[in-house]
Amino acid sequence: MLLHSLLFLVVLVSMDHFEPASSTEPGKEETTQTSCPEGTNCHVLDKLRNRSKYVARSCKEIKERYNEQEDGLYFLTTANGLVYQTFCDMTTDGGGWTLVASVHENNMYGKCSVGDRWSSQQGNNADVPDGEGNWSNRNTFGSAESATSDDFKNPGYYDILAEDMSVWHVPNDFALETWKKAAILRYHTDSHFLPLYGGNLLQLFKQYPVRYNVGTCVNRGPAFAIVYDKGNSETVRNLYGPNPRAEFVPGFITFRPINNERAAMAICSGAKPVSGCNTEHYCIGGGGYFPENSGQCGDFPGFDWDRIDRVRGWSASKEVTEAAVLLFYR
Amino acid sequence: MLLHSLLFLVVLVSMDHFEPASSTEPGKEETTQTSCPEGTNCHVLDKLRNRSKYVARSCKEIKERYNEQEDGLYFLTTANGLVYQTFCDMTTDGGGWTLVASVHENNMYGKCSVGDRWSSQQGNNADVPDGEGNWSNRNTFGSAESATSDDFKNPGYYDILAEDMSVWHVPNDFALETWKKAAILRYHTDSHFLPLYGGNLLQLFKQYPVRYNVGTCVNRGPAFAIVYDKGNSETVRNLYGPNPRAEFVPGFITFRPINNERAAMAICSGAKPVSGCNTEHYCIGGGGYFPENSGQCGDFPGFDWDRIDRVRGWSASKEVTEAAVLLFYR
Amino acid sequence: MLLHSLLFLVVLVSMDHFEPASSTEPGKEETTQTSCPEGTNCHVLDKLRNRSKYVARSCKEIKERYNEQEDGLYFLTTANGLVYQTFCDMTTDGGGWTLVASVHENNMYGKCSVGDRWSSQQGNNADVPDGEGNWSNRNTFGSAESATSDDFKNPGYYDILAEDMSVWHVPNDFALETWKKAAILRYHTDSHFLPLYGGNLLQLFKQYPVRYNVGTCVNRGPAFAIVYDKGNSETVRNLYGPNPRAEFVPGFITFRPINNERAAMAICSGAKPVSGCNTEHYCIGGGGYFPENSGQCGDFPGFDWDRIDRVRGWSASKEVTEAAVLLFYR
Repeated sequence: MLLHSLLFLVVLVSMDHFEPASSTEPGKEETTQTSCPEGTNCHVLDKLRNRSKYVARSCKEIKERYNEQEDGLYFLTTANGLVYQTFCDMTTDGGGWTLVASVHENNMYGKCSVGDRWSSQQGNNADVPDGEGNWSNRNTFGSAESATSDDFKNPGYYDILAEDMSVWHVPNDFALETWKKAAILRYHTDSHFLPLYGGNLLQLFKQYPVRYNVGTCVNRGPAFAIVYDKGNSETVRNLYGPNPRAEFVPGFITFRPINNERAAMAICSGAKPVSGCNTEHYCIGGGGYFPENSGQCGDFPGFDWDRIDRVRGWSASKEVTEAAVLLFYR
Repeated sequence: MLLHSLLFLVVLVSMDHFEPASSTEPGKEETTQTSCPEGTNCHVLDKLRNRSKYVARSCKEIKERYNEQEDGLYFLTTANGLVYQTFCDMTTDGGGWTLVASVHENNMYGKCSVGDRWSSQQGNNADVPDGEGNWSNRNTFGSAESATSDDFKNPGYYDILAEDMSVWHVPNDFALETWKKAAILRYHTDSHFLPLYGGNLLQLFKQYPVRYNVGTCVNRGPAFAIVYDKGNSETVRNLYGPNPRAEFVPGFITFRPINNERAAMAICSGAKPVSGCNTEHYCIGGGGYFPENSGQCGDFPGFDWDRIDRVRGWSASKEVTEAAVLLFYR
Repeated sequence: MLLHSLLFLVVLVSMDHFEPASSTEPGKEETTQTSCPEGTNCHVLDKLRNRSKYVARSCKEIKERYNEQEDGLYFLTTANGLVYQTFCDMTTDGGGWTLVASVHENNMYGKCSVGDRWSSQQGNNADVPDGEGNWSNRNTFGSAESATSDDFKNPGYYDILAEDMSVWHVPNDFALETWKKAAILRYHTDSHFLPLYGGNLLQLFKQYPVRYNVGTCVNRGPAFAIVYDKGNSETVRNLYGPNPRAEFVPGFITFRPINNERAAMAICSGAKPVSGCNTEHYCIGGGGYFPENSGQCGDFPGFDWDRIDRVRGWSASKEVTEAAVLLFYR
């Protein structure tokens, strides 16, 4: 009888790919869900797949509950139960950063054309002042592994309640495993500002709509000091053209700037506008209408001003124009 | 030896977060798949994640098999094994309603422009009489939590074999947990009409193509009486303009109307056309071409007729124009 | 005490829907994850859902590790852990073929309009020589069950390291379970050519960019002999117009042809260009600019040349124009 019960145990154990509890770190799951047949080399995949058992709304919760310390893809769940995968930065400043969105300019020559999901895909049009409205709605698009090849917005953007943001500028089309090294600029805030604005960008941009004609240059939204993780204020200055450099101070992230023509943008990455109000040359995202010469509407609005043969000195660098802007919460 | 075997058992039990069978309701799953570490507050999420173990093609099957009675997101599986999440209404008239699609007008000024997935994104064009063709193909787009912020169509649209439909008009950008309360109109059919047309909208619209020039006003598809769950015939009348009100009777859902200019639409929500044939002012979806003045092509075709300074009295209300139309099967 | 331990075992066993190991084929998983309540007819779905436990990067690995021999949907995992579902052809020439993409022409009259993801959605535009760039980036779109109703590209396109390709031409809007029978042409390579070009199309097209003005007609990429699985060289000839037939030889798959006007295409399916350089009439995909008369830019570039009243004899057949091109790796 004793032997019989032990036999049963052995069967169960082999079914579940049981490994002694001592081999797993505290707080971590055993690899019981998926299945690597013996003799195969899929154990790394198996480890990644077992992350599907984690139950958490953010990378911060993953880190705290399951003691994961590795950058990479994890499974998250919204308050309503929607399951999705995204990238977690588990190392910068203690880790726990959730990638919730990326802003990618697919065609610098397209003025609010297809692919401009963070401004408008309806052409430069004053009748559509909010453009796509994606800064303040629950629409989602793209995929984590594609975040440098196309726009990305996952449910974390509206579901997670966070305190701080981190931003990476990663050259277009680089693979996920290279992002951290390939980034031309990385920084985060540490002022715990997000709870004051509702806990995430959805709520913040409801208070500060990214909408044409919502106010004038003086009505810009809040700006917060940043801590550099890669690069510094000199790096930020060099991302943008010589003329804009005279109009902003580096070392900040700024929300909902408004330019001279009453066009609204969403984020000035690394910079705070202090004069001039020509924010379209260094701030990203936007509403659906940019009045000036019809040449600015788009996800990276006036980053290409010079290329189309106007006043020299306003265009952003090729580096920042051809890099996706990855937005993280913690 | 006996102690040893018991020790093993204890380890196994704790690994699987075992709870006594008596603590679970009949027909429900134990929460064994996902994992909430002790002392954390993720048990609500855990319950939602465990729905990923359910095996069903519709919310009706979920309700019957697993005795679930709560509105919310569930996992469904197509006949071919494709897994997706969608919203189930588990309470209206006995519950078991699957959200399969939403029709959302992203730009009332765009005439068959980007985002008009339920008519055409190719401009108003007689060469493309079917437009996107999404009423009668297997293309899918969007996400359940985004259903009031953008168009949504999931595999249930073509995979589920159903008997009745339910329709909710929910103001744009409202969150899933508020839909039922926020809806300005909710109704369902109870005539079990869908099996007569192939069991779902894919099959129905193969029989009644949403295509320009497929027939004249008299060739409209079938209409079925509705039961109101929120609102009434007066509500329906007030959704649309004074002129259309004289041309339809409320209390019905109608499929594939055709207007005076031979443009085809997909659904008249709440209404049956009886005279006049100006269905573009109160019916939604469409083929790729609306001949009249080039101002009607779109997901909500002529809902804005007056705004653009033509005959007054035809435009739909702001309420219905800025609300997504959610389509359910049971 | 012994009885107690056995009792525990029985409980555990029933919780996990335990079946004796002898009832499962070697290498296959027990159906323990999902759950069909007794007396229900969901066991076929249950079998499909249990495939979510497989851990593999390709259909070839699924076949080898889990001994699956049935065509259908399976779950795959990228090297970074991204989980997705796609179709596996488990029977042709030994099976193990992964569907990674489909090229679908949604509007033959749209010239690089919305839906032309394999060329450009920005209009015919020399400023955007790469068009969407999807042949050589990590962007993904669509769904396996929608692969004949819209463009499809999954993570396997860039993640899998393969040796050969298989191609199916399947009439638009056909359901997955009918693809193999409905296909008008199916073939595969057996020369193990992919490792020479980096192991997949992402790497191959980095070496041979699908870009306007990257070279002239003589700079086309490699061509490889094919083995027909359905159809033959006569079938291939009849897919395309009489004039192109004089310019290619059937029995090959060719990558990155370039036409007389320096426009680049991605794939000539079934054919190798040998003279004339009018590849736009029988090759698919493309960069963002086709100089000739502005009438060729698109996923199926010049397949409709005659329809718009120009020289007769160049247009492709209706059959091939209205069929999606499904791309597999092994």
